[in-house]
Amino acid sequence: MSNAPLLDSAVSDQLYVEVQRFYAVHMHLLDEGEAERWAATFTEDGTFEAPALDEPVRGRAALAASIRHGAAEREAAGEVHRHWHGMITVAVRSDGALAVRCYALVFASPKGGPSRLHRVCVCEDVLVREGGGLRVRSRYVTRDDMPVTARRAG
Amino acid sequence: MSNAPLLDSAVSDQLYVEVQRFYAVHMHLLDEGEAERWAATFTEDGTFEAPALDEPVRGRAALAASIRHGAAEREAAGEVHRHWHGMITVAVRSDGALAVRCYALVFASPKGGPSRLHRVCVCEDVLVREGGGLRVRSRYVTRDDMPVTARRAG
Amino acid sequence: MSNAPLLDSAVSDQLYVEVQRFYAVHMHLLDEGEAERWAATFTEDGTFEAPALDEPVRGRAALAASIRHGAAEREAAGEVHRHWHGMITVAVRSDGALAVRCYALVFASPKGGPSRLHRVCVCEDVLVREGGGLRVRSRYVTRDDMPVTARRAG
Repeated sequence: MSNAPLLDSAVSDQLYVEVQRFYAVHMHLLDEGEAERWAATFTEDGTFEAPALDEPVRGRAALAASIRHGAAEREAAGEVHRHWHGMITVAVRSDGALAVRCYALVFASPKGGPSRLHRVCVCEDVLVREGGGLRVRSRYVTRDDMPVTARRAG
Repeated sequence: MSNAPLLDSAVSDQLYVEVQRFYAVHMHLLDEGEAERWAATFTEDGTFEAPALDEPVRGRAALAASIRHGAAEREAAGEVHRHWHGMITVAVRSDGALAVRCYALVFASPKGGPSRLHRVCVCEDVLVREGGGLRVRSRYVTRDDMPVTARRAG
Repeated sequence: MSNAPLLDSAVSDQLYVEVQRFYAVHMHLLDEGEAERWAATFTEDGTFEAPALDEPVRGRAALAASIRHGAAEREAAGEVHRHWHGMITVAVRSDGALAVRCYALVFASPKGGPSRLHRVCVCEDVLVREGGGLRVRSRYVTRDDMPVTARRAG
């Protein structure tokens, strides 16, 4: 099974709710194509690793570019995507960072056509506090419909 | 992009959790066809605006009637619907009301047939406190599979 | 309509968040096939009743066995399942136990094929506190695509 922390521990309810709220804003920014504001929810050298990516995306500039690219693709396809995080577990690492493991859904809706479940994923984030807010230092996403590949970053 | 508030700000964790709990009860009432109890979670003159509605529904009586109508339609179709809110952001407006922007899913299950994703929506609510509880003063729903139309109420 | 408590009452925000966190860990354990750890989130004589089960499953050993069986079936089918709880309402019973009513989704993803919405369910749990944590004393699941059958356990 996964090596990800399955326990939800040493985290206050306040911090747990803060993580829920962080992801809500994070996903609204992503789905609205707010590239820079979304990238700013990562650390300056934050990484994003996912099966569809040839290599990990590293740093806010590259993260923002990847979202602009994705938004343009969805625009061209006439589709709207919505990202949902749920079943969130949060554990504190020995270095004080937060290890989050949660489920992630992507829904896709073509204009005029039926909405569909696009992806079911597991998202493993390392969150750190910067400037009073939470930031994603590393993200590792696996897709349930694809074999899990070895982790390369984070 | 949307003009809706994307930031989740000036709201305590307690209030954020209260909004989560409000929507859970609100949706159970809706999906159980509890028309009057559901309508009572709106203000007396509360409004509901959605693409499928020719005009905004205004006031508890009309809101309850609309739900009875929908429940009868689902009963006739032999379908059960479930409404989910998630990725909830809450901001305080200058007038003290709460501006909520969240995602809303509708799942449909015909008896004996496969369940399906029915709708993917964005819900923008204005919530106010009345009699100790939260109430919906206005709701504006957009469907991801339909063009966004100009807002008429709220 | 359901006789389940629809109100979310007499429960602190802290306890509500604890229930959210409990279900997140509970579902990660279930979906990872962690049979014993998942069964340990029930009371020793905990019961699980669902339409697909000929009779209620009772006790941790039987609960763990049922999950191992399900995990083997999914493995053979090359599918991954993810369970989501949402729209959670929590009420305190006269005996001090917690009566939870929430929605439950199951997503299924065959390796190499499209993910799909597998089930839409309503889950009614009675939760009690044991050894500092919450435990499921009884679970009653109904599927939206099947007629509701009379309750046999719990």
